[in-house]
This record gives sequence, C-alpha cells and structure tokens, in this order.
Amino acid sequence: MKLYGYWRSSAAYRVRIALNLKGLQAEHISVHLVKDGGQQHKPEYIDLNPQELVPTLVIKNTASESELKLTQSLAIIDYLEQVAPDVNLLPKSAASRAVVNSMALLVACDVHPLNNLGILQYLSNELEVSDEQKSAWYHHWIHKGFKALEVLLEQHSGQYCFGDSVTLADVCLIPQVYNAKRFNVPLDDYPNINRIWDNCNQLDSFKMALPENQEDAVI
Amino acid sequence: MKLYGYWRSSAAYRVRIALNLKGLQAEHISVHLVKDGGQQHKPEYIDLNPQELVPTLVIKNTASESELKLTQSLAIIDYLEQVAPDVNLLPKSAASRAVVNSMALLVACDVHPLNNLGILQYLSNELEVSDEQKSAWYHHWIHKGFKALEVLLEQHSGQYCFGDSVTLADVCLIPQVYNAKRFNVPLDDYPNINRIWDNCNQLDSFKMALPENQEDAVI
Repeated sequence: MKLYGYWRSSAAYRVRIALNLKGLQAEHISVHLVKDGGQQHKPEYIDLNPQELVPTLVIKNTASESELKLTQSLAIIDYLEQVAPDVNLLPKSAASRAVVNSMALLVACDVHPLNNLGILQYLSNELEVSDEQKSAWYHHWIHKGFKALEVLLEQHSGQYCFGDSVTLADVCLIPQVYNAKRFNVPLDDYPNINRIWDNCNQLDSFKMALPENQEDAVI
Repeated sequence: MKLYGYWRSSAAYRVRIALNLKGLQAEHISVHLVKDGGQQHKPEYIDLNPQELVPTLVIKNTASESELKLTQSLAIIDYLEQVAPDVNLLPKSAASRAVVNSMALLVACDVHPLNNLGILQYLSNELEVSDEQKSAWYHHWIHKGFKALEVLLEQHSGQYCFGDSVTLADVCLIPQVYNAKRFNVPLDDYPNINRIWDNCNQLDSFKMALPENQEDAVI
C-alpha cells in the first residue's frame, strides 16, 4: 500500500492514525500542497485523485496486476475496517455506531471542509478578505463545531470520545484539534476535547501519526 | 421514527430517499430553517440536535421508554443500513464499497458543506460579500466537485453512480444536483450526472423525496 499524503493535511493524518491503530504498514509518499503551486495539481497526481486532494491510498494487487486507487479519508478508513477488522474503529451496536459516526461526521463534514487550504486560498484570492477576517472565519467554524461536539461528549465520552475505547470519532477529532492549536484557537471552553486530546496523544498510534513526526515535516 | 427535516435541506432529502428505498416509514416534522430566525435554533430543537442543523432522526423504544436521537445524515443512513439491511445502499465487496463511499463523501464533505445556509449567511452578514460573489462561490464549489465526480462516474457509472444499482452515491448526488439547479448552475458539462439525475428521478423513492413533494414545501 502507498499512502499519498502531506504532513499537515488533517485528512491524511486521520488515515495515518487508522493505519497505525490497525497495525498496517504503508509507504508514505509526500505530496507537497504548497510547493510549485501545489503538487496535488500535477497531471500524474490528478490521475490518482481527480479531486486534487490528499490523501490517496493506492493498493497494488500483484496477482491481477491491477491497482486500486482510493480517495476520501473516511472511505479509505471504512475500507480498512472491511479488510482489517481485528481492530474495530466502530462499536458493534447500531445505536452506538451511529453516535460515533455522528461525532466523526460533525468534524469531517461541518468543521474541516470550511477550514482547509483550498477554502482559505479562495477567501484570500477571490474574496480578498483580510487576514483578520480569515482568522475569524477559521475560529468561527471551529467554535461552532466544537461547542456542539462538547454536548455530545458530555453524554458519551470516557477516556476517549465514546467511552473508553478509541473510535473513528477520535481519529477525526485529534487532527482537527491539532489544526485548531496551529491556528491559535483558544480551546479552554472544551474540557472533554482537551482530555481526549491528552489521552489519545499518550498512544503510540496517535503519536507516530503527528504531523511533526512525518518525514516530510518542515519545522 | 420521527424525522425532523425541512423540504429544501439537502441533508434531510438524503435521509428521505434512504428511508423510501428501504421501505421505512417515519413521521416527518418540519423545522423551518428561515422563519422566526430559524426554528433549528430554538432550545427544544437544540436538545435534539446540538449542531442546530437538520435532519435529526428520533427513534422511540417503547419497551425501555428511551429515545435515540440521531444526527448527521450519513450517520443516520448508516444506522438504517445496520437495522434494515434488506435493501443495501453499499456494495458487498470492500473495493466497490470504497468507490461508492468516496463518491458519496466527495459530495457530502467537499461540496455540500460549502454551500449550505449557514455558510451563505456568514458570507453575507460577516464578510459582506455581494450577491454576485456569493453566487460565484456557490458555482465554484459545485463545479470543482462535479468535475472530479464526472471522472469517477466515467469509470464506474452505469444507469446510476455505481453500475446499475442505486447506492449511497446516488442518495448524496441527487439532492446536490437539485440544489445546483435551484441556484442556476449550468450542468451541461456533466453528461454522467445528467443521466443519473434523469434515471433516479424515474424511481418512486426519489420522486417521493423531492423537496416540492413535501408537506412543508412552499412553491
């Protein structure tokens, strides 16, 4: 397996955590999202990922000489759930599974997409908003999402987002918190999120996946 | 089951299609997203959905007198997949399932969140962008997403997004196309999307779920 990613991409970070939790190895290939106008826009990468986004997981089937190109971090993680079910990221009961999914999707659909690189570039280049406005935009969507997530965590969390086992909700939350800290979003009002951040980052699977621990990190 | 939704909400529209495809009944309760400053912001609704978004699916368990409150359309649909698996919205093979999920998530994570009501309100109220700029923003993210989706559809579609069976990808795509048409986005460059739109809207499950066929529709 080859994982095309970037050290600072939240979506690639999610997949790194999931691979580590499941004990799966992948060769990491860096797609620099800024250098040369963004390597994700090069024709050879677009052939792997028509959305021109990271991550992409490429799986070679040596028997059939075919190649599976998987895009969208949550689709990749669901694929890993199917083929490597020894470590499960979703609870067995349908009701619990729905709660975990709703927390993961709150981050993946309602926070992350508003704050990723392409959107911030559009705000600067097309709408010519100031750096202050861009920062306010970023903080706004983080606070909106985290405030609602805290309500769900108050009801369902333990050591981690859902009780005391690591789930897909943690896999999505931790990269988003990392990003929020990078953009100096004050997180004092989110005691459950802070506890889960601390607990997850005690675990090797999360530590190994941290952006600064990637080969392509520039610090 | 009670589905809290709104006729024009794309996310509620997805859940309506999924319920219809699976032959499940739910009482539809309208949450007017604009009237009175938005009924989704009322305390009694926030108790059901701390994100103040539709849809929410509420399931009463009469035996235990407990209530399950499910949020996030894709988490709700996954829940329905677990409890009503007779009609499957995802293929059995892990590789095919990943492709369907990637198409569904392309719409749900990278198109829809950028164009929903809250974002358009923020653009007007906080960033004071003009109506032309707001329309350009809307069109930009639709075109970006649909252009990439057409590449995937060219490889995988038949009558529907993935071969000749209706899947989660269609459930996500059709409400997004409906919205694009509402905002006058020209769709001539997307032959596969147009074909799938026509084919899905031949099916009762999709027709019954159309916004204009809802009780709370104002036309």
